[in-house]
This record gives sequence, structure tokens and C-alpha cells, in this order.
Amino acid sequence: MIKTSEIVKRILQHNEGKINSVYFVAAGGSLVDMYVSYYFLQAESTTLTTGWYTSNEFVHVQPKRLGANSIVFVCSHSGSTPESVEAAHVAQQAGAVTVGLTFNAKAELLKYSDEKIVYEWGNEREVVNNPMAIMLDMSAQILAGLEGYDQLPAFRDAFAKIDTIVDNAIDQVQPRTKAFADKYAHEKMFYILGSGPSFGHAYGFAICSLMEMQWLDAAPIHSGEYFHGPFEVTDKNKPYIVLESVGRTRPLDERALKFLHKYAEKVEVVDAKELGLDMIDSKVAEFFNPILFYTILSEYRAKLADKRDHSLDVRRYMGKVPY
Amino acid sequence: MIKTSEIVKRILQHNEGKINSVYFVAAGGSLVDMYVSYYFLQAESTTLTTGWYTSNEFVHVQPKRLGANSIVFVCSHSGSTPESVEAAHVAQQAGAVTVGLTFNAKAELLKYSDEKIVYEWGNEREVVNNPMAIMLDMSAQILAGLEGYDQLPAFRDAFAKIDTIVDNAIDQVQPRTKAFADKYAHEKMFYILGSGPSFGHAYGFAICSLMEMQWLDAAPIHSGEYFHGPFEVTDKNKPYIVLESVGRTRPLDERALKFLHKYAEKVEVVDAKELGLDMIDSKVAEFFNPILFYTILSEYRAKLADKRDHSLDVRRYMGKVPY
Repeated sequence: MIKTSEIVKRILQHNEGKINSVYFVAAGGSLVDMYVSYYFLQAESTTLTTGWYTSNEFVHVQPKRLGANSIVFVCSHSGSTPESVEAAHVAQQAGAVTVGLTFNAKAELLKYSDEKIVYEWGNEREVVNNPMAIMLDMSAQILAGLEGYDQLPAFRDAFAKIDTIVDNAIDQVQPRTKAFADKYAHEKMFYILGSGPSFGHAYGFAICSLMEMQWLDAAPIHSGEYFHGPFEVTDKNKPYIVLESVGRTRPLDERALKFLHKYAEKVEVVDAKELGLDMIDSKVAEFFNPILFYTILSEYRAKLADKRDHSLDVRRYMGKVPY
Repeated sequence: MIKTSEIVKRILQHNEGKINSVYFVAAGGSLVDMYVSYYFLQAESTTLTTGWYTSNEFVHVQPKRLGANSIVFVCSHSGSTPESVEAAHVAQQAGAVTVGLTFNAKAELLKYSDEKIVYEWGNEREVVNNPMAIMLDMSAQILAGLEGYDQLPAFRDAFAKIDTIVDNAIDQVQPRTKAFADKYAHEKMFYILGSGPSFGHAYGFAICSLMEMQWLDAAPIHSGEYFHGPFEVTDKNKPYIVLESVGRTRPLDERALKFLHKYAEKVEVVDAKELGLDMIDSKVAEFFNPILFYTILSEYRAKLADKRDHSLDVRRYMGKVPY
């Protein structure tokens, strides 16, 4: 795993250590990868304010608190997403310490990054080097440094285990992802349910995996919101993918599933517990749901793409027309 | 407008006035109504932490900061939404001052509300008495009381004008909402775009107006996120409703619209500026977008319901089966 303890040490010394806010800013898939870190700080911190912003909204509406007491994470896989580069720029101008994460060592983003993290990518069985894991690890260290958050040993243990869990889970889901692709190849729209730390990936699977990479209609639904409007469209013909998390919000997912199993017939469950996430200490396990879900959902989308004969890499607008 | 200054005064004296957080907790449509207050405090406050939670997630994962220094708004139209009642309960037990808003003077919610607000409902031309307006007004007063936020006169002026603006806008959109219903009566799915203070209502129109009340598929998309995945599904046959806000995030909506006008053909624009919102002082106008949009979108949904012969009041699950 990329060693970030020196970086965190420097960040926490910024402006004499008077950090009061941590913002996560990116667009699309990179924003999705930040959700769990945002969720973690929003839930666990007693002194920090946090925020989760799509880059262009952050560029146009910076929180008034943004300044020398702020840490701003900005992530862009290519490192050249204009809105994200500009977000890092405005954050730096406001006096914040900026942490840029990218796959591209020559990224424009790094010009405006006080701390530069060039991550690895492509090996789905080594998730600890993904930006999602790196930012979560740094967020836990930041909270430990500022507030004495005492679960760092559990975090370290979890990071030591997560690659093995994911690796096993990939093998475990091979038959069911193939069956999924066979069953759902001709569907036109999917609802993706999730809660707590995993809501980011419910959103991400909808907008990146299905809309962007498969040109399929999709919508995320928070499992807790499902019963307050969205469930009225439920019927036997509508496909649902449910991310069943380990952790405090699992009862929300279970409740939605109970209903879906009664009134829907096209329900695919991705259960983090069944896939081994409960091997992690329950005090921190929930923060690792999205790391597992991302890789497992990538298996689902790969099989769907194969079956539909629609490459995950083909785009009609992105990088092809001006916008 | 319901006079809340005495309530705000009491709230701000809670725990010797050491308020450090304001949380907005509700489910479905009531949660939607809170988004702008959350957005306002997230953008404008330099001392407060804020959060926007679906009730059942708040019940299962309360932020560690929740306590005697917290204000928790809980809204439930019926006042009996179990998750929202429980959210007020746990917030009160944690020592927070709870503000309950409901249409029902005998609501269970009020048992756990330190401050009780029974609002009016039903007159779409008197929006200042809607919970959305009441909470926004209180949020501005809270920020003025705690940090000296200096736009209260502009807020008061805006509240004095907003009913007239909405009233005129309702008349103005009559022909176009009828045309919308004629054109889109047979569509099966809609994307709703919005940004900044209006993203809540992009979400709300999707989950409440279309999914819940019309059993139509729908998905909200943040205008800033549109170009980072979701736009790949855009084509001539897909319907988009775009909430074009007045204020700082308007360029995000304009950019999405420019693209949609080129690559889509079914695009309905609801432009707050054209509908008169720029009559409000530009320093606060953006916070009034959702108040205008809610009522105008209600006109759209009413015409669609008429044309589709699908009453807005009919449900298949809500209140009919156990869940």
C-alpha cells in the first residue's frame, strides 16, 4: 500500500495544525471513490466539517469556510479533468492544502496539488493501491492525528486483509455474474440500491458502469429512501441490484430486500457479508464495503458488456465531441 | 409567514448558545424540502457543521458530533413517519434541540420535538408557509444569530416577493405545462437535471412526482456530473427536464443545456430567471430557486397526471401493504 503517513504528517502541520475542514472534490467515478471517506468523517469526526462536491459546483460555490484551515482532496484519473484541475486551483488560492490524486504522473492536476499522489491502477486484486483505499486510509490517519481516533490498528488490519477478501470474492462471483449477464442482457434500465458507506457506489454503478460504459438507463436509490416514493415503481419486470452492506446500515438494505423479494422478480443481491467482509473487525468493517463492491460490481459489468457485445471502453461523446 | 423569530431565539440559547451543528433529517419529499437549507449552511457558514440525512440512516448512524450543541430539524408531513419520529427521538436523547415540522397538529413527531411547527399546506400560491420556506428562513436567522450573517434584510425582501413571483409564474407556465403533458404523456422514463440549491428538487421531482405519484421511471442528475458519465445515454428519444437555476451554479445548467439542445430533442427547460426569480436580490436569489421550482414542477406533474389519467393520489404500496 502506498505509504502516506509522511504526507498526512505534513498536511496536519499546515497552518500550525489548525485544521477544521476536509473537502472531497472530483467528478464522476473519482467523486464516487471519495464518498466513503466523506461518509467516514461525517459520521466519526467531532471537530471537522466535511463536504463532497462535484468539481464544477465547488469551482462556482466554494464553502465560505474554505481557507488555510482546510484540506482539499482532488482526484482525477487522467489528471486533466478541467473542472477538477480548476477546483484544486481555487482551493490552493484560498489557502487550503491540496492533495491531488491521479494515475498520470504528468497530470495538470499536480500543478495545483501541494501533496501529489500518483496511484496504481488496473490490478483489480490489489485494491489497496486504488485511490478509494488511499483516501480512506488518509482520512483515518487525519482523524487519528486531530482527534485521537482510536481505530487505526483495526484499519491497518483491515487493509492487510482486504486484498485477500476481494480476491476470494472475485472467484466466488464468477458463476453468478455470468448468470446475471445472461438474465439481464436485454434490460434497458436498472435501479441500484445501497446505503451508508455504499451509497456512493450505488450512484457510481448507475452513472459510470451502466450509463457511461453501457449506454443503459440507470438510477441510484438510497435503501432508506426507497420506501418514501421510489418503491411505487416496483414490479415483476423491473431490475434491481441491491448492495447489501456490512455494518450499521445493513438493516436498511435488508428491509428493502425483504420488500423486493415479495414484489419484484428481477433482484440481484450483492451481499458484502456473504462475500467475506465480516472477516474484518466490525468496528471498521462498514468502511470497507465500497472497496469490495467496486471490484465485484466491475465483474458484473464486465460480464454484462461481454454478453451485450458492448465494449466498456466505447464512448459516443466523452473525448469525441466538444462540451 | 409563520413567525419563527422567538423559536430561533430559544434554539440559539440551547446549551448556553454553544451550537456547532445543524442537521436536517427527513424522508422522501420532506427530505427534498430540506436540501436548500442544508446547501445554504454548507455554503455560507464558517462555524457550523451541517448534514442532510434520510431518517433511517440517521437513526442507525448518528454523527458522533450529535449532542447538546446540535440543532436537529425533523420534518414529516403526516407527522407519523416512523423513521422520522424515531430520528427526532434519538436526537433528543442525544441532547440536541429538536425542531419538528408537520402538517398534523396531533403528530407523534411532536412528542419528540422541543420546538413544534405546524405548517399550512395546500395553497400553492402562498409558498412562504411551506416547510421549505420556513426552514430556509430559520436557517438564515440561525446563521445571523451565530455568525452575524448580514443578508437577513435581503431574505426578508425575498420572502415578501416570492409569493407574487410564484403566482405570476404559475399563470405564465399554463400553456407550456399543457404542451408538455401532450408531448410527453407516453414516455416511460425521465432524467431531471439541476444543480446547487436546486439539486434537491431534481431528486424530488424524480422520486416523488414521477416515481411515487405517476409510477414512471426517473433519475436525477446533477448538472455538473452530467458530463462525467450520464451524458453518454443522451439521444433524440430520451426526455430531459432541466431546472435552470438563478445564481452561482447557473453556468453548470447552461452548459448541460447547450449540449442537450445539440444532441437531444426532448428537452423541457424550467428557467427560474425567465420565470421572474431575478426580481430577488442576487445576493440571496439562488436560495429561492427551489421554492419557485417546487410549485412550477407541481403544475407540470398535475398536467401530466391529467393527461395520463393517473391520479396523483393513487398508490399501490404506500399505506396499503406492510413494509
